[in-house]
Amino acid sequence: MVLVRQEIGDVLRDFRLQKGRTLRQVASKASVALGYLSEVERGQKEASSEILASVAEALDTPISVIMHEVGDRIAVLEGLSAVPDSLPDELVAEFDADMMVR
Amino acid sequence: MVLVRQEIGDVLRDFRLQKGRTLRQVASKASVALGYLSEVERGQKEASSEILASVAEALDTPISVIMHEVGDRIAVLEGLSAVPDSLPDELVAEFDADMMVR
Repeated sequence: MVLVRQEIGDVLRDFRLQKGRTLRQVASKASVALGYLSEVERGQKEASSEILASVAEALDTPISVIMHEVGDRIAVLEGLSAVPDSLPDELVAEFDADMMVR
Repeated sequence: MVLVRQEIGDVLRDFRLQKGRTLRQVASKASVALGYLSEVERGQKEASSEILASVAEALDTPISVIMHEVGDRIAVLEGLSAVPDSLPDELVAEFDADMMVR
């Protein structure tokens, strides 16, 4: 069973690391307990919509970007391509190569 | 503040109505209490990841499709275009027209 909280946690952690921020910095900026944010990142706790909004803001990342990334990753888990059919073949090949790296 | 549960609720209801199913049918198939599903659809309750997976399955809809639709709708609320830059102009116009109808 694909669990959305697992993918949300992974995406939040990846975005945080991309921006070079610590758990402590993001938890503090989002006014969320550090232990709670850590559990959310590990997919052990469901983040409420309010917490998700605060953490997204603390990461300077629109919630829509987080949700799209979550959708892309779940599509891969579900065996669905995250690439729209209308993309040219060379872009699809590039995407596939990118997926291999992950 | 953009609340993810509100958009998830709207998307679940819209997909259910598109498929011509009643709350009772989907709740029963997903083994979820009818009142609970109704609250989720109205954005009053956060759906756990397990419930979301069950409801998506009951709707014969991949979770990734639900998450992408949620991301698209939040992008509009956030004032971000949900249309990738690479789409041809005529498709963008079509998308904009579609958005107007909503």
